Amino acid sequence: MLRKKRRYTKMRKVYADHNATTPLAPEVLEAMLPYLGEHYGNASSVHVFGREARAAIDDARVRLTKLLGCGESELVFTGGGTEADNMAVFGAARASRRRGSRHILISSVEHHAVLHPAQYLEKTGECDVTYLPVTRDCLVDPDDLRRAIRNDTVLVSIMSANNETGTIQPVKELAAICRERGVAFHTDAVQSFGKQPVNVNDWGVDLLSIAAHKFYGPKGVGALFIRRGTKIDPLLFGGSHENDRRAGTENVAAIVGLAKAAELATATMGEEQHRLFDLTEALGAAIAERIPGAHRNGHPKQRIGNTINFSFEGCEEEGLLLGLDLEGIAVSSGSACAVGSLEPSHVLKAMGLPHELARAAVRFSFGTSNTAKDVDCILEVLPKLIDRLRSFSSKV
Amino acid sequence: MLRKKRRYTKMRKVYADHNATTPLAPEVLEAMLPYLGEHYGNASSVHVFGREARAAIDDARVRLTKLLGCGESELVFTGGGTEADNMAVFGAARASRRRGSRHILISSVEHHAVLHPAQYLEKTGECDVTYLPVTRDCLVDPDDLRRAIRNDTVLVSIMSANNETGTIQPVKELAAICRERGVAFHTDAVQSFGKQPVNVNDWGVDLLSIAAHKFYGPKGVGALFIRRGTKIDPLLFGGSHENDRRAGTENVAAIVGLAKAAELATATMGEEQHRLFDLTEALGAAIAERIPGAHRNGHPKQRIGNTINFSFEGCEEEGLLLGLDLEGIAVSSGSACAVGSLEPSHVLKAMGLPHELARAAVRFSFGTSNTAKDVDCILEVLPKLIDRLRSFSSKV
Repeated sequence: MLRKKRRYTKMRKVYADHNATTPLAPEVLEAMLPYLGEHYGNASSVHVFGREARAAIDDARVRLTKLLGCGESELVFTGGGTEADNMAVFGAARASRRRGSRHILISSVEHHAVLHPAQYLEKTGECDVTYLPVTRDCLVDPDDLRRAIRNDTVLVSIMSANNETGTIQPVKELAAICRERGVAFHTDAVQSFGKQPVNVNDWGVDLLSIAAHKFYGPKGVGALFIRRGTKIDPLLFGGSHENDRRAGTENVAAIVGLAKAAELATATMGEEQHRLFDLTEALGAAIAERIPGAHRNGHPKQRIGNTINFSFEGCEEEGLLLGLDLEGIAVSSGSACAVGSLEPSHVLKAMGLPHELARAAVRFSFGTSNTAKDVDCILEVLPKLIDRLRSFSSKV
Repeated sequence: MLRKKRRYTKMRKVYADHNATTPLAPEVLEAMLPYLGEHYGNASSVHVFGREARAAIDDARVRLTKLLGCGESELVFTGGGTEADNMAVFGAARASRRRGSRHILISSVEHHAVLHPAQYLEKTGECDVTYLPVTRDCLVDPDDLRRAIRNDTVLVSIMSANNETGTIQPVKELAAICRERGVAFHTDAVQSFGKQPVNVNDWGVDLLSIAAHKFYGPKGVGALFIRRGTKIDPLLFGGSHENDRRAGTENVAAIVGLAKAAELATATMGEEQHRLFDLTEALGAAIAERIPGAHRNGHPKQRIGNTINFSFEGCEEEGLLLGLDLEGIAVSSGSACAVGSLEPSHVLKAMGLPHELARAAVRFSFGTSNTAKDVDCILEVLPKLIDRLRSFSSKV
């Protein structure tokens, strides 16, 4: 009776799934609204309505390139992180095909937006693909990369921070290896931007993807950095937008929102990620102490501050997510993009987790709204839920 | 002195470039705002935040499929019209390549979002492409299509209404020819939707593209209808969004806005397009009467109501657009997507216009805000401007 009542009364909601998406920052919406209102022109039109829109995009581009450390001609706005990743992989592979080169190298823990394009290129016979292994901590070993590069390798794509475990790859070292061998290096920085310093020159990357909705910007917009001289074919063909590299009427409001969100996230990042690191460590320590059979996934230190991932012996992720959701706690088992799949996470499998543990993972990804209260709230619910799930499954 | 003063005082602004883009309808923005605010979940997340977003997308899909006359599983939301067109052309071509078929057929007046993918497939050797001619009125002759279909033709793509001239193609007849021959038929309905009745079964098409910002919806969102059984490869790979056919976190607010805008446009279309047809005819009649050497482009009757296109002997489009813009009148010379190109419109050239006239075209595309006052305003400016341009060029 008590439980039933509780569900229908106002419950504290804990959103701990910021790696799936983040709320739009009010300042970002405010910056976008004029372009959803009176400034509605098509940025490619030559008249005053078009020039207003063009000026807004130019301004957004300048601001974003300053943060990334790249030139204005090196940045292409896209319809999101997936499009940016696809453009990098397909674009580099197809631009090089004409030279007869056809090998690409990716890590085995890439987001599906990199993994699936690579698999498609493999299936169609356009490319050979090598999948680099990772350690139990989710790290790529630079020596593995060094050994795997071939003379016909045209692209290496390794994410800067993993979306499921938060593990930060040694991007700088990996990029240097590629540069030495003259191979283009792409990093999917979708989970890094706004959480760790991202500078294309400091890292030495040739291609880099970001997505606004992961750092309190709007959905449906992202960007791809393309270093001058890096050859890639476009993915979308049509009008001569974005210097003939990405066709499609520019989404002015979203682009303005992307730049604003990038500035806000970068400005507060240092302090905020420390705070979230401490918060997730507090959660992690309590879980380790109070829940037997809890296994932490990913590198314990070399990680973005907001993300912590655990597998719980004897549980299934469906039960974990459902149970937490009923108590108002929103988390995920891994990538939101892989929902509906009956397969365990390819990331956790690549890390060597046995099937049972790969099927029993919960990712907590914190953000601006989360406080110690949320950690308490999770800890009030989680141990009991796991006891229930285990006692249930032992009776089946 | 008088002219100088006029430029700095409040001038009536005439936006007559609705085929480039339209202002967002206030009701559409209102429908979008909750999804730019509190309902920020990722529609692929299983928790309550995700389910709210998923419900909004499901609802938008149901509403849009009702308008188009298709099933819910036959509609894929995209990042815009260009992406929808690219997905249709690349998707159909690449899905069939494995069967050894490799011929596609498009009209020579397609938007660049269809034309350039076809040219890319030709350049990479993936496909043979045939470009169907059009009449002086911008119409495709169904007999030409009948003759051009080959045994290995996998796709025919012919737009329903041309963006530059407004000419409406005999889509129903063209689609029937393709159906008879077992060839998939795509129509780019980006300029039709909201301006003429669009029903996929009435037309008998297999693939159909729309873009929200052409009918008072947001930029950055569109949709592709894919008839059940029509084989196409995805264009964007990654998560299992949109039934594994279009990866990328769903742009919830934009999708909600697309459905709302589609409903509004469809509800008012009949009356509104009549009104705009009369308005453009009034403009056309006055131009024919008052401006010597004015040539109307496109079919005079078989056209979407809002679009009228003229070439003016002895003028260059740069001067025309600039002169009109200085007087507060926003029009275009053709596709906003082709701005910056020094080439004359490929559409007008395909219609057989001589170079001088193809370089001297103005497209007026009216919308909800335009009234007889705007026609007066244009007529006050245009004849004088053309006189000036002609007297200037005769002296060079």
